[in-house]
Amino acid sequence: MRQFSPSAVKRLLLDPNWLRLALRLRGSVIPAILPEVLFCVAFGVLISAADIYIVNLHWPVLGSLIPSIVLGLLLVFRTNTAYERFWEGRRQWGNIINASRNLTRLMWTAIDEQTAADRQGKIKAVNLVGAFAIATKQHLRHQTFVELQPFLAPHEYQELQSVQNVPLRIALWIESYLHQQHCCGQLSLYQLTYMDELLVLLVDALGSCERILKTPIPLAYAIHLKQLLLLYCLLLPFQLVDDLGWLTGPMVGLIAFTLFGVEEIGIEIENPFGRDLNDLPLDAICITMQQNIHDLISTPAPHQSSLDDVVIPHDHDHYSS
Amino acid sequence: MRQFSPSAVKRLLLDPNWLRLALRLRGSVIPAILPEVLFCVAFGVLISAADIYIVNLHWPVLGSLIPSIVLGLLLVFRTNTAYERFWEGRRQWGNIINASRNLTRLMWTAIDEQTAADRQGKIKAVNLVGAFAIATKQHLRHQTFVELQPFLAPHEYQELQSVQNVPLRIALWIESYLHQQHCCGQLSLYQLTYMDELLVLLVDALGSCERILKTPIPLAYAIHLKQLLLLYCLLLPFQLVDDLGWLTGPMVGLIAFTLFGVEEIGIEIENPFGRDLNDLPLDAICITMQQNIHDLISTPAPHQSSLDDVVIPHDHDHYSS
Amino acid sequence: MRQFSPSAVKRLLLDPNWLRLALRLRGSVIPAILPEVLFCVAFGVLISAADIYIVNLHWPVLGSLIPSIVLGLLLVFRTNTAYERFWEGRRQWGNIINASRNLTRLMWTAIDEQTAADRQGKIKAVNLVGAFAIATKQHLRHQTFVELQPFLAPHEYQELQSVQNVPLRIALWIESYLHQQHCCGQLSLYQLTYMDELLVLLVDALGSCERILKTPIPLAYAIHLKQLLLLYCLLLPFQLVDDLGWLTGPMVGLIAFTLFGVEEIGIEIENPFGRDLNDLPLDAICITMQQNIHDLISTPAPHQSSLDDVVIPHDHDHYSS
Amino acid sequence: MRQFSPSAVKRLLLDPNWLRLALRLRGSVIPAILPEVLFCVAFGVLISAADIYIVNLHWPVLGSLIPSIVLGLLLVFRTNTAYERFWEGRRQWGNIINASRNLTRLMWTAIDEQTAADRQGKIKAVNLVGAFAIATKQHLRHQTFVELQPFLAPHEYQELQSVQNVPLRIALWIESYLHQQHCCGQLSLYQLTYMDELLVLLVDALGSCERILKTPIPLAYAIHLKQLLLLYCLLLPFQLVDDLGWLTGPMVGLIAFTLFGVEEIGIEIENPFGRDLNDLPLDAICITMQQNIHDLISTPAPHQSSLDDVVIPHDHDHYSS
Amino acid sequence: MRQFSPSAVKRLLLDPNWLRLALRLRGSVIPAILPEVLFCVAFGVLISAADIYIVNLHWPVLGSLIPSIVLGLLLVFRTNTAYERFWEGRRQWGNIINASRNLTRLMWTAIDEQTAADRQGKIKAVNLVGAFAIATKQHLRHQTFVELQPFLAPHEYQELQSVQNVPLRIALWIESYLHQQHCCGQLSLYQLTYMDELLVLLVDALGSCERILKTPIPLAYAIHLKQLLLLYCLLLPFQLVDDLGWLTGPMVGLIAFTLFGVEEIGIEIENPFGRDLNDLPLDAICITMQQNIHDLISTPAPHQSSLDDVVIPHDHDHYSS
Repeated sequence: MRQFSPSAVKRLLLDPNWLRLALRLRGSVIPAILPEVLFCVAFGVLISAADIYIVNLHWPVLGSLIPSIVLGLLLVFRTNTAYERFWEGRRQWGNIINASRNLTRLMWTAIDEQTAADRQGKIKAVNLVGAFAIATKQHLRHQTFVELQPFLAPHEYQELQSVQNVPLRIALWIESYLHQQHCCGQLSLYQLTYMDELLVLLVDALGSCERILKTPIPLAYAIHLKQLLLLYCLLLPFQLVDDLGWLTGPMVGLIAFTLFGVEEIGIEIENPFGRDLNDLPLDAICITMQQNIHDLISTPAPHQSSLDDVVIPHDHDHYSS
Repeated sequence: MRQFSPSAVKRLLLDPNWLRLALRLRGSVIPAILPEVLFCVAFGVLISAADIYIVNLHWPVLGSLIPSIVLGLLLVFRTNTAYERFWEGRRQWGNIINASRNLTRLMWTAIDEQTAADRQGKIKAVNLVGAFAIATKQHLRHQTFVELQPFLAPHEYQELQSVQNVPLRIALWIESYLHQQHCCGQLSLYQLTYMDELLVLLVDALGSCERILKTPIPLAYAIHLKQLLLLYCLLLPFQLVDDLGWLTGPMVGLIAFTLFGVEEIGIEIENPFGRDLNDLPLDAICITMQQNIHDLISTPAPHQSSLDDVVIPHDHDHYSS
Repeated sequence: MRQFSPSAVKRLLLDPNWLRLALRLRGSVIPAILPEVLFCVAFGVLISAADIYIVNLHWPVLGSLIPSIVLGLLLVFRTNTAYERFWEGRRQWGNIINASRNLTRLMWTAIDEQTAADRQGKIKAVNLVGAFAIATKQHLRHQTFVELQPFLAPHEYQELQSVQNVPLRIALWIESYLHQQHCCGQLSLYQLTYMDELLVLLVDALGSCERILKTPIPLAYAIHLKQLLLLYCLLLPFQLVDDLGWLTGPMVGLIAFTLFGVEEIGIEIENPFGRDLNDLPLDAICITMQQNIHDLISTPAPHQSSLDDVVIPHDHDHYSS
Repeated sequence: MRQFSPSAVKRLLLDPNWLRLALRLRGSVIPAILPEVLFCVAFGVLISAADIYIVNLHWPVLGSLIPSIVLGLLLVFRTNTAYERFWEGRRQWGNIINASRNLTRLMWTAIDEQTAADRQGKIKAVNLVGAFAIATKQHLRHQTFVELQPFLAPHEYQELQSVQNVPLRIALWIESYLHQQHCCGQLSLYQLTYMDELLVLLVDALGSCERILKTPIPLAYAIHLKQLLLLYCLLLPFQLVDDLGWLTGPMVGLIAFTLFGVEEIGIEIENPFGRDLNDLPLDAICITMQQNIHDLISTPAPHQSSLDDVVIPHDHDHYSS
Repeated sequence: MRQFSPSAVKRLLLDPNWLRLALRLRGSVIPAILPEVLFCVAFGVLISAADIYIVNLHWPVLGSLIPSIVLGLLLVFRTNTAYERFWEGRRQWGNIINASRNLTRLMWTAIDEQTAADRQGKIKAVNLVGAFAIATKQHLRHQTFVELQPFLAPHEYQELQSVQNVPLRIALWIESYLHQQHCCGQLSLYQLTYMDELLVLLVDALGSCERILKTPIPLAYAIHLKQLLLLYCLLLPFQLVDDLGWLTGPMVGLIAFTLFGVEEIGIEIENPFGRDLNDLPLDAICITMQQNIHDLISTPAPHQSSLDDVVIPHDHDHYSS
């Protein structure tokens, strides 16, 4: 994707934006791991002071106590696990997008309209599918559901206040609308069941997101890794103090930054439903879905137009099958 | 997710809760691996005593006998495997949640009610779906099924005492209820089959949990890893005794803690259906499902209300299709 | 899962069952890799003799010829691959359990009975599903199918002798029974097709097990890994002989045990359908399935009992739909 | 796949095409990472100059500050992640190919034709399926949709200019065509729904590609890895300057090339929908699909020919079922 | 799987077949990597000559330039990727086997026969399913389709010469046969659609195999890995020449063999559809499928026999549903 500009050297001098990435603070984990790093720096300074003024503390054999391969592999296990959760969260939101697109397209095409009221009902139901995504977003963020107000009648919005799981209630309303359409003969039983399957995909994605949110990595791993990291960093000064003197503190801080940084990223992306820079862009995803629904609603319902060419009673026969 | 408070240094001094995690004992594996660690410490002390009072035992070449990369990679293989089982167990319980939500929603919407008895039957059947999850939990924990009593008639509870696999029997009852509804014309054949598919998902999740429970990691791996770990720890004192003297014991204990700790976590989370801190929160999951079902039952059945607008005979025709 | 007994030290002294695992021979790979290990020991002894009596053979640079990281990663690749095959084999047997449970439950509930002969036929068909699992087990183990005799009529058992793939023939019989039930009006076309889908899952699992059995890891990997392991172990004595003298042989044997052991476990679990300790407990799985089927058969067919409440002609109408 | 030519030595001297691969620049990442590498070389030269003319800067302990295992594992995590995205992108395009083949084959076979206009409509609809793939390609590349013009009527092409998501609109047209065929009795409801399922697969693949395109690896990883790489390369000269003197610069450049190269490949293949050598061959894929469709259209519609043998009214009855 | 014979020592001396594997050449990668290895040997000899006769070239610091962990992890990434492609290819062929078994079984059972011609048609169609697998094999190997001649009428075989994708055309014929059976009332619409689903699985597997064949690992990885390997091997002599003298050449060759061997295996199994020892046994797979089909055809069609017991007009009613 990156293009080779022949003036690479010039770019290096004039616009070193690859450097900017390396030095950037926002979105980086540096702020979050500052306490740990400062603690290690302080300990390092303490050891150098003791080594210089009191007694020789150089003890290099301590450096090999925690096999760096075990530490490294555990850190990467943490990283992989967290990233898999991040990516599964994204995939589940991809499922919500896909199922919404498919469900709304099918509703738009397959549900028969006879009156303007039918069309209004259909538009409202299609918007409910978009509202499901918004409700899921707010549910995962433990926020209020004010964003849903435009899509709902006042008594419906009221009803939401008393339920435990808002997205589930919206799914129930969509299901209920579909069954109503079937009962009054606008939707065949067969197509209804297929729409049920798509609705099931929406509810499955909600459940999977809740699973990611509520089941962090087992506590024992988090504790053991934290213990190993701390041990490793606190043993380092004994290994370095002879060579580095007063520089021991800063250098230990650098290593602590390296290691705690990897751990911290794992903690940050493990729950990808928040609102900071390293989380999923859920707001943008919801807006895209609104646009897709808007695109759909602004089409003339294609089925409607084709009805002109067909004898309507025949169509009724199909639904009774 | 973690926010950067500008007073990071202050937080470090006043509320070092990141430290608390590192020092915490409950939920940690330290208690479980104490015997192994103490054994290694004792051996280390023995070697230092022998080295100091009897004969020089410093033999550093022994330190490279077991390539630490092989040991590290095996440990991480163990860790990955155990975590995958933990996470698959969680996913299967996610499937139980999802399938229960979808099945109950469909039952609530699609099954026709004519009388109050119909409604009572429906509420009982929906509760049976919740009982399936509880029965699965107790089945995986080899516990009694007392928790199921509220959901069952006395003769049903009696019947459960004599069957081998309680959740399977409950699934059979749900299936049986659904077929009954179909036979008396309250549920179309088409929707019945789709509900069967959701019930199949429940039974599949039960089977997958049993699979995780009953098939541990192959015995040969467990033995080989344990042998390597023990060899590695028992060879360590010969490498360290010259530099560390009487400190050899404690230091070997530290390394043993590092390595056996990783192995122990694998053992703990490999079977995630127990009741301790590192297991899945099955009780909380079951309570969430009860809440979802309660939410559902407290809604007026939407299909019911829409029936007012439609001619009932038509509806019957649909079911005969 | 392991509980912390406060008397850990006491347990250590009185009941060290964690040690027993490390020292256990049965189920371990030690017997299988004895030849390789003895060969390496002999070579090590030879080199020490030559080094001591003839000419100095200490050549430490040879030790770094085969990067231990490459060897380690290849070993772990082998391990991962073999374990994935083991676990996929287990999952396929899980699929057989699940599909059997679902198929038998559906057959029991959905197939109509009018006469006692109908019931006998149903019981026989349900048992055929259990027989499919047994036949798959025997097929994967290249054993005779004597275990199937109780489930079959003599002429059927005779017929099996001449077919190439016994489980496939049993699947054909089940399919044939289901179609027969459909033809004589006991089973709707719709439910028949859904049962076909479950039968397809059974046959898919059979195919997947055959795939695991017949496609080992590519030969080139097996050869290359064996070559690297042998090279690594034969270069070791030149590195150790100066420090260890006559101990070179045993120590090389120890390392050979470590490395060949990991490889051997891979070979053992790669094909998990055998009968030794590290294979899947297929016999126990088949017995569990028999129990599930027994549980099911001992229930009164629920559909039957509900028929009392419904007008039978109506029921017939449903099936014609 | 590579064959062993007995004249391996001759091949080595006359046609060393294995060397050509190693020395090739096009498709390699060398151009892209030139700035980083030159920066590191310049820093290395600076340090050697300072070391030689000003003050001894040899400080080998700095070399172990960043554990190379952590760096290596992070680099490989980056590599794996990027490759998985590349491969998932390819798999999604495989899904588009498969779903298109299946959907067009079913449309060709199952949709009834009575008039030449029916056939023209069918050919146009089958081509729309091919157009969906092209539209997806252009959509992912943020290009104009001129390539679609041959497949569309002018007013349709006009309509596309105003929608946000062009492939979704094409999917809506296909759905609309299918429903029209159902309404005028050329396609049974049952087959329509199955075609809907295949169309859903197309839209799912579109959504998955958008997901890969819009969700890069979390920013924090990219920053942290870049920081570690830079730190590692800038600490290197202090380790090498004593041994290498003026060669320090070039050698640091070599290592920088090694490490930044791996990172850069990750960046390049992370979004595989572009047009350079390391991206997916989307143009070739689209052309293959056109060929498959051409193959299909050039067949006589098989259903048509078989109609000669059947009484047409009967066929109508099937569709009313 | 390997049994412990108590006479392990005896086996070691008399039948060392574990050694045979290590020394075996056929199926090994040694021939393929000979040029690279010889080149490295030659360079090593050159350096030793220069070191001995001209100037001291011992420069050990060069040995650490390319971190062996990065090289090792990249090699293993290559290995994993290639093996995953190999295994996915195998899984897709497993899918072809499964779908063929299920499709032929269903065709045999569910398609009604009235005349001997019906039966002949059915046998031909079932054989076409087997022909699909053979056509896929030849298509993936870019071979002619002579093997298909026995299954086809001459004009059909002629028709194949002009199509781009032969397996797709065969799938079209199968689909066409199924629709014909539906049109003349031998197959219900419902079962037809389910068979369509199985046919879709066959075509999906074909597409997945094409995907593996046509999308190698991204070029940039292949180039970068080759470059790193070559650099690593060419820097080695400077590290070894002092210790090994004239042995430098052979030892460098040994390491080159180790590393290029791992890379070469990746190249060999990346495309598993060829005909050499490390490829999938596609010919054997196709023969197994022929046997399964033969087994099936030699059964009396079970549905046929059951027709004796049922009134035929009723059966017709079922199909009209």
